[in-house]
Amino acid sequence: MLKGIFPPITTPFVNDEIAFDKLAENISKWNRTKLAGYVVMGSNGESTFLTREEKLKLIENVKRNAGKDKILIAGTGSDSIKETISLTNDAAEIGADYALILTPSFFKGKMDSNSFIKYFTEVADKIVIPLIIYNVPKFTGVNIEAAPVSILSGHKNIIGLKNSSENVAHLSEIINVSTDDFVTLVGTASVLFTGLCAGAAGGVLALANIAPDMCVKVYDLFNEAKLKEARKLQAKLIPVNKAVTGKYGVAGLKAAMDVLGYFGGDPRAPLNKLNNNELEDLKTILSEAELL
Amino acid sequence: MLKGIFPPITTPFVNDEIAFDKLAENISKWNRTKLAGYVVMGSNGESTFLTREEKLKLIENVKRNAGKDKILIAGTGSDSIKETISLTNDAAEIGADYALILTPSFFKGKMDSNSFIKYFTEVADKIVIPLIIYNVPKFTGVNIEAAPVSILSGHKNIIGLKNSSENVAHLSEIINVSTDDFVTLVGTASVLFTGLCAGAAGGVLALANIAPDMCVKVYDLFNEAKLKEARKLQAKLIPVNKAVTGKYGVAGLKAAMDVLGYFGGDPRAPLNKLNNNELEDLKTILSEAELL
Amino acid sequence: MLKGIFPPITTPFVNDEIAFDKLAENISKWNRTKLAGYVVMGSNGESTFLTREEKLKLIENVKRNAGKDKILIAGTGSDSIKETISLTNDAAEIGADYALILTPSFFKGKMDSNSFIKYFTEVADKIVIPLIIYNVPKFTGVNIEAAPVSILSGHKNIIGLKNSSENVAHLSEIINVSTDDFVTLVGTASVLFTGLCAGAAGGVLALANIAPDMCVKVYDLFNEAKLKEARKLQAKLIPVNKAVTGKYGVAGLKAAMDVLGYFGGDPRAPLNKLNNNELEDLKTILSEAELL
Amino acid sequence: MLKGIFPPITTPFVNDEIAFDKLAENISKWNRTKLAGYVVMGSNGESTFLTREEKLKLIENVKRNAGKDKILIAGTGSDSIKETISLTNDAAEIGADYALILTPSFFKGKMDSNSFIKYFTEVADKIVIPLIIYNVPKFTGVNIEAAPVSILSGHKNIIGLKNSSENVAHLSEIINVSTDDFVTLVGTASVLFTGLCAGAAGGVLALANIAPDMCVKVYDLFNEAKLKEARKLQAKLIPVNKAVTGKYGVAGLKAAMDVLGYFGGDPRAPLNKLNNNELEDLKTILSEAELL
Repeated sequence: MLKGIFPPITTPFVNDEIAFDKLAENISKWNRTKLAGYVVMGSNGESTFLTREEKLKLIENVKRNAGKDKILIAGTGSDSIKETISLTNDAAEIGADYALILTPSFFKGKMDSNSFIKYFTEVADKIVIPLIIYNVPKFTGVNIEAAPVSILSGHKNIIGLKNSSENVAHLSEIINVSTDDFVTLVGTASVLFTGLCAGAAGGVLALANIAPDMCVKVYDLFNEAKLKEARKLQAKLIPVNKAVTGKYGVAGLKAAMDVLGYFGGDPRAPLNKLNNNELEDLKTILSEAELL
Repeated sequence: MLKGIFPPITTPFVNDEIAFDKLAENISKWNRTKLAGYVVMGSNGESTFLTREEKLKLIENVKRNAGKDKILIAGTGSDSIKETISLTNDAAEIGADYALILTPSFFKGKMDSNSFIKYFTEVADKIVIPLIIYNVPKFTGVNIEAAPVSILSGHKNIIGLKNSSENVAHLSEIINVSTDDFVTLVGTASVLFTGLCAGAAGGVLALANIAPDMCVKVYDLFNEAKLKEARKLQAKLIPVNKAVTGKYGVAGLKAAMDVLGYFGGDPRAPLNKLNNNELEDLKTILSEAELL
Repeated sequence: MLKGIFPPITTPFVNDEIAFDKLAENISKWNRTKLAGYVVMGSNGESTFLTREEKLKLIENVKRNAGKDKILIAGTGSDSIKETISLTNDAAEIGADYALILTPSFFKGKMDSNSFIKYFTEVADKIVIPLIIYNVPKFTGVNIEAAPVSILSGHKNIIGLKNSSENVAHLSEIINVSTDDFVTLVGTASVLFTGLCAGAAGGVLALANIAPDMCVKVYDLFNEAKLKEARKLQAKLIPVNKAVTGKYGVAGLKAAMDVLGYFGGDPRAPLNKLNNNELEDLKTILSEAELL
Repeated sequence: MLKGIFPPITTPFVNDEIAFDKLAENISKWNRTKLAGYVVMGSNGESTFLTREEKLKLIENVKRNAGKDKILIAGTGSDSIKETISLTNDAAEIGADYALILTPSFFKGKMDSNSFIKYFTEVADKIVIPLIIYNVPKFTGVNIEAAPVSILSGHKNIIGLKNSSENVAHLSEIINVSTDDFVTLVGTASVLFTGLCAGAAGGVLALANIAPDMCVKVYDLFNEAKLKEARKLQAKLIPVNKAVTGKYGVAGLKAAMDVLGYFGGDPRAPLNKLNNNELEDLKTILSEAELL
């Protein structure tokens, strides 16, 4: 059963092309941590800017470099059911263990519970690896309700959900109504501790790219029932997480990686990289959290 | 120091006028519980539909009927600083212990941190009872950030904040950056347990109008470090809370009161009361939560 | 029948109190224009920051100073039906010709067509001057649909609607479905020309505080069927309007008044006044539009 | 120079596969109208549900069946610059005359003016057919401001913009600040008439799938300076347009096609088809507009 902390790893670019050597270096560092595995082609992986060919090469490279004990989750969803099935099965063939599949979202007003049930059932029926639902209202503009998740949790190939909103009430409701073996992962470090309190099994955290040990430590402290210590450490994570998700986004996360000994590099266009003022602000935030 | 569970009590109407006898009956029931006190003229009190004269009569009546040990918090805020000060001080004179003051919100796009600091400082300087900031984005369309709350928490007459969003990350951040004696209350039962985990001192919960004992029990279990039991009881509260806040709102809360032995009555126009189908649905939800 | 251009006049403050002498000076200037009348206590009048007592004094003063030919429209609506009726009738007694009544909005998710019909019918039944519905989603967070407006347009005391969104499709739909004698006014200068094309009878325009002649000229050119000239002049208004509504709001409008020979002054707290950079930017915009 | 009325043609499916024979039948009917051309793979073409292979086959088929005088515009944009260039050039090779390119949108909060300028410039530099910017906030959650459009309008390969919001003020502003030969098309029939008044050159209208003659008639009446007649006919279009865009969306548009002698068929999953009540409602709306 899936649990623990996963970073949605960034995709390094040099001259606008994926830098596989830099990727390998990053992974070799993460391999030495207690991270449970990697999410490749999550939102922070700039999946939206990659061609199909690039996506498959990326998965292949991550698989090759990941430690044997690390689980590999690939973000392979898009609005097209056909393409989602096709890409997921190609990803599975080259080593993806799980598929993280975005809620369909283009026709926002029309994506009701029935649409989500239809979409995820059709996909889950035809893919050869287990499906994790990916709910991220900030980017998709849609939110999957607890009721359809309850139904979908009964499908034998739909094993969990990553919830990337900060709405812990929604997370609690999903946990309450889904089957016992359904796994819920928080999708942002700001609610790691409270999400675990609510019953989440772990998290897919952008922050885990730059602070894997601190994220794992919150998780471990919680599981050792050291709640005060867990909450105290969580408090440190919040301002950094706010900077590398809300405020500066992927560009901020990559800049922080560069500052902290990983390879970050520039995000791909049309994302902007940080300017100097933003970079200085980011460094201050990292210092205050004792990461720098 | 403020702590525990407070219901934002509904305002009963008969023939569109406040029914003070029904109010007294409700309060006499709540007096027998372990509720810490009452919020009068919160959102669920339909404060927005009351005239100034009605508001003062309402406070007077609640004060007269409340148990001696019950704290009285009055919702006296509006966009006008002058009127807020004036109404709050009138409320204090007739017995309000604390003032719960809404973030100003009419000019949504212009209400920045500076506006909030200016507003709450001017009000707090001139009112004779302690001020609790009331953040409720669902109704105001604005959200006060943690940074201005941090500054305002240093004002000797601003003692706390009620946060009515389900964003527990925001609550955590506020708790982390505010002064040690600043009190944070969750504003909806859906995040009671996780809010307490994050460090909240209690809650102002619509649900406490109809399920005071269950709400207090979650609070007590948490404080006795019985986390599993607290979370289990919390799970029961979530569907009911969703019905009487999000789905059916004040009309639903009042209908549930009627069903459960309190006086609810109709909401004031322009709010609609529930139709028969909605009422049946609500009863089913109450039954499933073992409240009915 | 109502038509032409109305400024929602700003409320001048000196030392945080209404400066009635400054108000009189502004009005004496506007009296010399072809403005059809004045809206007092519109959004731009900072009505939301005034006490009841201030509101009545304000209406009285505007009435006393307005030219005999100028129509006086007073913004007297709030969520409370009782208070709206009471304030409107007090306003009527001291000279208001029409009441501009906001859609109720506190319980956003619950304000459906039925709520609006109930609210406006109850109010219109009991006020002694004609009612104009005021739809301003930017500030209220709600939008009244065409269907309830169609029904309300049949009420003999509901004579029109001011629509302050830039959605001209919505305006067109309202015009199509309402009764023939129902008056529709655009609520922002950005859609003055296209709104007139769609069939609007005029406009309540913040911009008319500082550029009454240009606004009236667009209206006149349209009515003389000089469409090209109207559209050309309209093009000049758009950047200024954007600055004094969206970008800088009431503070910007007041600053522009100061620059252009009216008395603007500071907005009331919690609104911020412009800083120096913003003021310079505003002056540039006014110059480019040949207003300065 | 681009002008006139274009339908964003629907993509017919039978047993979840593109039905090219049905497509040919629809096109042969549209060929007999005064439509200026076709938009293939617009939002209403359910482009989001198609694989790359299906997209190219679709363009090829539309090209083969379109009348010689009909312009072919293909919707080939996605967040990935690489994939957008590649798909557009493949589309050009098989006959697309123009590319309609969506604003990038996944990282909503980060898509500022600079991002849009970078994205569209990079794409326009490398594609072999002219680029039309496609702004559709309803589906993308982002809105391109007039300022970047002004800059982009100076690029020799960026020839226009389709604006699918109902905000005619935004359209006016874009027209005012863009170069003289920059073409602006309205993106929804609800603002066809007022958009033309504002200076638009035509429209890409879902409604033109089912009512090509009425849409063309509004356009012709406007150009003959018969404004009253144009506005009167426009009034008829509004309720139908509301049903086949906002209310029922693509499923409604396809159902209306079936009712009116075209082949509509079911939308692809996860979109739902209309239920019987919705279909009856739709028929009533079509009757009232004298289309049925």
